Amino acid sequence: MIMVSDSELQKKLASLGIEPGDEILVASGERELKGILIPHHEFSDHGIITVKLGSGYNVGVKASGKTRIELLKKAVASPFGKQKRGAEHAAKSELRRVAFAGTGGTIASFVDYRTGGVFPAMDAAGIVSLVPEISRICSLEGRNIFSVFSENIGYEQWCVLADEIADRLNEGYSGVLVSHGTDTLSYTAAALSFMLPRLSGPVTIVGAQRSPDRPSFDGYLNLVSAARISSSSDIGEVVAVMHASSSDRGCNVHRGTKVRKMHSSRRDAFRSVNAEPIAFVDDEIHFLSDYRKSAPGRVRADTRMEEEVALLQFYPDMDARDLLKWADGKKGVVVAGTGLGHVNSGLVDAIGKLTGEDVPVVVTTQCLYGSVDLNVYATGRDLIKAGVIDGRDMLPEVAYVKLRHVLAHHSRPGDIRKAMMNNAAGEFNDRRTGLDEF
Amino acid sequence: MIMVSDSELQKKLASLGIEPGDEILVASGERELKGILIPHHEFSDHGIITVKLGSGYNVGVKASGKTRIELLKKAVASPFGKQKRGAEHAAKSELRRVAFAGTGGTIASFVDYRTGGVFPAMDAAGIVSLVPEISRICSLEGRNIFSVFSENIGYEQWCVLADEIADRLNEGYSGVLVSHGTDTLSYTAAALSFMLPRLSGPVTIVGAQRSPDRPSFDGYLNLVSAARISSSSDIGEVVAVMHASSSDRGCNVHRGTKVRKMHSSRRDAFRSVNAEPIAFVDDEIHFLSDYRKSAPGRVRADTRMEEEVALLQFYPDMDARDLLKWADGKKGVVVAGTGLGHVNSGLVDAIGKLTGEDVPVVVTTQCLYGSVDLNVYATGRDLIKAGVIDGRDMLPEVAYVKLRHVLAHHSRPGDIRKAMMNNAAGEFNDRRTGLDEF
Repeated sequence: MIMVSDSELQKKLASLGIEPGDEILVASGERELKGILIPHHEFSDHGIITVKLGSGYNVGVKASGKTRIELLKKAVASPFGKQKRGAEHAAKSELRRVAFAGTGGTIASFVDYRTGGVFPAMDAAGIVSLVPEISRICSLEGRNIFSVFSENIGYEQWCVLADEIADRLNEGYSGVLVSHGTDTLSYTAAALSFMLPRLSGPVTIVGAQRSPDRPSFDGYLNLVSAARISSSSDIGEVVAVMHASSSDRGCNVHRGTKVRKMHSSRRDAFRSVNAEPIAFVDDEIHFLSDYRKSAPGRVRADTRMEEEVALLQFYPDMDARDLLKWADGKKGVVVAGTGLGHVNSGLVDAIGKLTGEDVPVVVTTQCLYGSVDLNVYATGRDLIKAGVIDGRDMLPEVAYVKLRHVLAHHSRPGDIRKAMMNNAAGEFNDRRTGLDEF
Repeated sequence: MIMVSDSELQKKLASLGIEPGDEILVASGERELKGILIPHHEFSDHGIITVKLGSGYNVGVKASGKTRIELLKKAVASPFGKQKRGAEHAAKSELRRVAFAGTGGTIASFVDYRTGGVFPAMDAAGIVSLVPEISRICSLEGRNIFSVFSENIGYEQWCVLADEIADRLNEGYSGVLVSHGTDTLSYTAAALSFMLPRLSGPVTIVGAQRSPDRPSFDGYLNLVSAARISSSSDIGEVVAVMHASSSDRGCNVHRGTKVRKMHSSRRDAFRSVNAEPIAFVDDEIHFLSDYRKSAPGRVRADTRMEEEVALLQFYPDMDARDLLKWADGKKGVVVAGTGLGHVNSGLVDAIGKLTGEDVPVVVTTQCLYGSVDLNVYATGRDLIKAGVIDGRDMLPEVAYVKLRHVLAHHSRPGDIRKAMMNNAAGEFNDRRTGLDEF
C-alpha cells in the first residue's frame, strides 16, 4: 500500500470540495468510517485523515492511493467561519453570546505523528470547528489570548485572563469560556476566583486530558458542557467544567477554589475536594450545591498579587534551618502539614520565628481531604501559639494563591489574618462533614 | 450533682475490686451503661469513668456521689497481665506469638478533659487491655519502644523500629505489630519497606484516627485486624492496616509503599494509591492483589539513609533561583510536578543545572493518582534531556524516602538512577491502569 503525502491528500480533499467540519466517508480496504473531518495541521504530514465519529471518538486513517473519500454533508458554518467571512455578527441570532478565551494546553493541541509528542497549536476557531454542537447552544466568539502549556502559566497570564474576562462580561457577554491546560487549571481557577470577586456571568474553565486528534477526546464533552453553563446558568463564580466520570455521561461543575487535578491522566481527573460539585451537566444542568449567583453591574478585575510567597510540604526530618532558609526573602509561607495540620517540633519553633518577623505562615493539610484542626493535639496548640494562620479545609494550592492576593492588599498582621480567615470565594466549606466520598 | 474527685473514684473502684478490663455497670440517674472499664490515666482527673460498650464505642461518664458502679465480670488476664504477674509465658499456648512495638500517637493516647486536647500516654499493655479480642487471635508480646506524636518521627525512629522488627522476627515471632500515629504512618511504612528488603513474617503498622477514650475508637478494629494479619498471613511485606470504610466492617491491608493518609480526620483516611489494597480483613483475610510472601531466614535491617534530600512541590511562578537555593547542600531532590510530571520552563533549566552537578532529581506527580509520563509532552521530553529520574507512579513521599535510601547505598549517577528505577518494594505498580476508583 503506497502512502500518499500530506500535500497529495490535501489536494484530493480540495478536489472533492471537502473542508474541515464536513461529514465524510473514508473507505480503506474493508474498513469504512463516517465522521466529521478534523482540521489539518502543520505537523500531521504523513497523509493522515482524522475523523470524529458519531460516538465523539476521533480516528486517524493513513491514506493510501486506494483510499476512497466521499463528501457526505457540508458543515454548517461555525460562528468563527462566519466572522472570518465577514458575515453578520452572531449576536443577531437568538443564541446567547459567550466569550471565548483560549490559553493553550491539550484541549488546543494535536499529536505530532513523527515524534508521538503533543504540541499546542490550534486557535479558538479550530477548537469550535471540532465541536459543532456548541453552535446549537450559544454563539461563541473570541480568540486565543495566548497559547502555552499550563505549567508555564502564572501571575502574568492570570492578570491577562482576569482583565479579558472583566472586559468581555462588561461588554455584555452572558459568560466567558476559558480553555486551559489541565496541569495548573485549578491554580488558575483559584487565582481568577480571588481576582474577580463579583461576576455578572459564569466563568467556565475547561481543559482536556486527551488531545483532539486522539480517540476519546474528552474536550468535546467538556466544551459542550462548559458552553451550556456559560450561556444558560446564573452562576456568578469561576468554575472548572470537566468529565464527571470515565464515561461520557456528563461533566461536573467544580468551584474554582475547591477543585484539584487528582489524577495525571484520567479523563475524570478533576475532583471537588471538601465540597460537592456545584452542578452536574448533561443535556441539562443539575445543581448539587449552593453557589453565588451572578449579579448585574460592572465587573472589576483586582489582579494585584504578592510575588514572594512559598508553598512547602512538611515531611519527616524536614529541618528548621531549611525552612528558615527557604522562607528567607518570602513575604508569606504556606505549609502543607500532616494530618490535622502538624509539623515536627523543630519546625514549630522556626515557624514562630517567622511569624515573629511578621512573615505570615498558613497551615494546611497535605492529606488534601478533611480540615486542619489545631485544637485537638498539643502540636496544633503549639502552632497556634507560634502564630500560624489556620488554613481549615483550604487546599494548600488555594491557600498559596489566596495568600499572594491577600498580601498585595494588606500589610498589618491582624489585617492579613482577618483577610485569610475570610471566606472570600468559597474556599472554606463548613458543610463538608456530610460528604460521603473523598 | 456533686462530682467526685479522681482519687475518690479510684478508691471506690478499688473497694469494689474493679480493675481496668473488667466488665462493669455504671448507673447514673436513668442512664445505665454496661461495658469494659478503660484504664485510668494521669490526666483524667475529673472523676470520669470510661467504658467500652459492646459496640466497640467508648463512653465517658462523669461520676457523682449518686453514681452506682457494679462489677459484672472480672477480666480474663491479658498476655501482658500474665507477664507482669510472672505467670507462664504465652508461648506455651497454641496461639502464635506476635511482637508488639508501640511508638505513640492517637492509638496510644487519651483525652485530657481539662483542655480538650489529646496526649500520648499509654504503654503497650494498656492498649492490649483495651482490645481483649487480640488475646483470642494471638499472643501479643512487647513494649512501647518510644512514645511520640508521629509528626516527630523520622530517620532516628525508623532505625530503632527496623532493628526492633528484625530482632523480633529473628527471635521467631510470627510477625510484628507496630502502633504508630497516623500523621506520618505512611512515610514510616515506606521507610521500613526499603530498610527491610526481606521479611520472615508480616510487619503491620496500625494507627487510629480517634483516641481510645473517645466514642468510635477505630484503633479497636485496626488492632484486631492487624493482629490477624500479623499472626496468620504469609505476607512478607510492611503493610498498613486501617479502616476500609467509615463503618466497622473491616480493614484494608495497604502495601507500605503505596499507602497515603488522604483525609485529616476520617477513620478510613488511608488509601492505597495507584494500587489495590493487598487484602481486606474482617473475620477472615480476603486477598485482593499479589504480594511478596514471607520467607524463612535471617532478617537484616539495612537502615542507612542520606539526610540531605528535599521534597518540593512545583507551583505556578515557582522560581528557578528558589529551586537552586532550596536544593543547595542537598544530595538529591524529589519534585512533585503537575500532571504527567511537569514544571515550568525556568525550572527545567534549573533542574538541568542540578543534575549537571550530579544532584539527582526525581520527578513525581502532585496529582498523586496516576503516573508520571515524560514522553507525552514537550516539557516532559525536555525534563528527560535535563536528566531527571522518572518517578512513574511512585508517591512523592515514597520517592523522598526511597531516594534517601538509595543515596546512602550508591554514589555514581548511573547506579543511583538504576536503583531508583528498580522496583525494590512494590513502589511501582504497572497494573494500575485497570483501577476503577481513585
